[in-house]
Amino acid sequence: MRVVGLAEIRAALDEAAALAAVEEAFRRYSAGGAQVTPVGHLGFSDPPGDCHVKSAAVQGDDVFVIKVATGFYKNPERGLPASNGFMAVMSTRTGEVLALLYDEGYLTDQRTAMAGAIAARAIARAGSRTLGVVGTGVQARLQGKLIARHLRLDRVLVWGRHGGRAGTLAGELGGQATTLQDLCARSDVIVTTTPATEPRLTTDMIQAGARIVAIGADSPGKQELDARILERAFVVVDSRSQCIDHGEAGWAVRAGLVDEADLVELGALLVSPMSFRDDEIVVADLTGVAVQDVAIARSVWSRL
Amino acid sequence: MRVVGLAEIRAALDEAAALAAVEEAFRRYSAGGAQVTPVGHLGFSDPPGDCHVKSAAVQGDDVFVIKVATGFYKNPERGLPASNGFMAVMSTRTGEVLALLYDEGYLTDQRTAMAGAIAARAIARAGSRTLGVVGTGVQARLQGKLIARHLRLDRVLVWGRHGGRAGTLAGELGGQATTLQDLCARSDVIVTTTPATEPRLTTDMIQAGARIVAIGADSPGKQELDARILERAFVVVDSRSQCIDHGEAGWAVRAGLVDEADLVELGALLVSPMSFRDDEIVVADLTGVAVQDVAIARSVWSRL
Repeated sequence: MRVVGLAEIRAALDEAAALAAVEEAFRRYSAGGAQVTPVGHLGFSDPPGDCHVKSAAVQGDDVFVIKVATGFYKNPERGLPASNGFMAVMSTRTGEVLALLYDEGYLTDQRTAMAGAIAARAIARAGSRTLGVVGTGVQARLQGKLIARHLRLDRVLVWGRHGGRAGTLAGELGGQATTLQDLCARSDVIVTTTPATEPRLTTDMIQAGARIVAIGADSPGKQELDARILERAFVVVDSRSQCIDHGEAGWAVRAGLVDEADLVELGALLVSPMSFRDDEIVVADLTGVAVQDVAIARSVWSRL
Repeated sequence: MRVVGLAEIRAALDEAAALAAVEEAFRRYSAGGAQVTPVGHLGFSDPPGDCHVKSAAVQGDDVFVIKVATGFYKNPERGLPASNGFMAVMSTRTGEVLALLYDEGYLTDQRTAMAGAIAARAIARAGSRTLGVVGTGVQARLQGKLIARHLRLDRVLVWGRHGGRAGTLAGELGGQATTLQDLCARSDVIVTTTPATEPRLTTDMIQAGARIVAIGADSPGKQELDARILERAFVVVDSRSQCIDHGEAGWAVRAGLVDEADLVELGALLVSPMSFRDDEIVVADLTGVAVQDVAIARSVWSRL
């Protein structure tokens, strides 16, 4: 077993190659070409934190991956990063642990941002210019940068509960901080990245044609969007089963506002792109699928 | 993150302390004092192998554990051990990876054997003298040694499909190889340790009063005991949900031979020991619960 630290991982990550690998992984996942175990969730309350364990094997690959990622949101108050974890790269031939990518959450953060950019591109209207970033954490920063670059959006708006942090992030992204109402009104693409457990975006904020990438809801109990937004929207999910279990789609399905059968997986949308009406609201609900971990870990491992 | 290799892990493992910790873990698990994620299974066919991912957090503990264990049964033909994997010891305060116990399957093997010994003691008749070991692999060896020592059984019988291997193991355990029929007829306690996917022990082999610890069925599709044996037996399970999902009990419940409500968890039996009638058949169905991993990893970690 080779233990690979963060510096080496960062150096080995080729963003374009990994992004292409993650996109391909979604396609293969939705086509049934992967084994994905149910997500393991562990929750902690004092201090609050959670741990996700995700594992997948993609047919024909020589390696499979087990990923452990933790989020302890009060760590920064103690001078520690909120995210942590590792990805284990295992042989599909012998079960050996080939490499332990001790990424401290870095690869999870990256592949999550990549999924956001892939989903945003799949649902954005042609001619989009403005990105609205809801939240001020790690994903807000990464999604803000990657989506803007990937979709060539030249205006960025930021909203966060802490006005100061929103201002700082807006400065970093070359945009401006604003109210949530204003952000929703002016953004062509909205990405929501908070750990909220009740809706931040209400349906009255959302105009016809809105395109929303929702990243925050990745565990039971989390929710950023009022389910009535999804009722009005075409809903894309990264994983039907996971999103029904613990994504935004789950709230809407359980409330009887969205029919399970109407959910379309991102991988299917990538295989057969759809042209949405300009006034159509589209929500991409991303919970994070282990095939993304396989894709990014393989991509890094192949360059080590 | 500290990476701890096998030699250091072996040196730090105190069998008596770990066994007590595993026993306590079963009690706390069955009393509802643990979060255990559903087992993640990945299966491979060419060559055949499987991977189990198990995670748990026990209330009040300062660490939680993610365990990855693989079994590739043809590895020995290539000079490699069949078992592999690691246990990650994580902080419940910060989510940090404190230690990576790169045990290559060693701790999983040990805690599995410990569960066998704990279950065997809980169900054995007083005055038992003879242990029957079904199988000739790693667990056959470990269970054979640990159960015999733990229950002071002074006679060991071994059966395996490969007569030669059965003879070798019998020699190692100070016992004798025999037929499966003879083993079942003469053993006070039988432990089954094969990766069989169809019953090895048929109901006609099993006499009144038999006590069977079934270790092999730890994944969907595996089965060592004819479900009609369980129909005649008092059935103890390490985890109600896991055993119904992929243990021996699952076959019997699905066949309508055993009522789910009649299954008793090992942890509950340890809290409130039962005296079985001498002629009562008792089966302990062990699928392996992540709290065992937490217990043994914590026990090792506390001594490092």
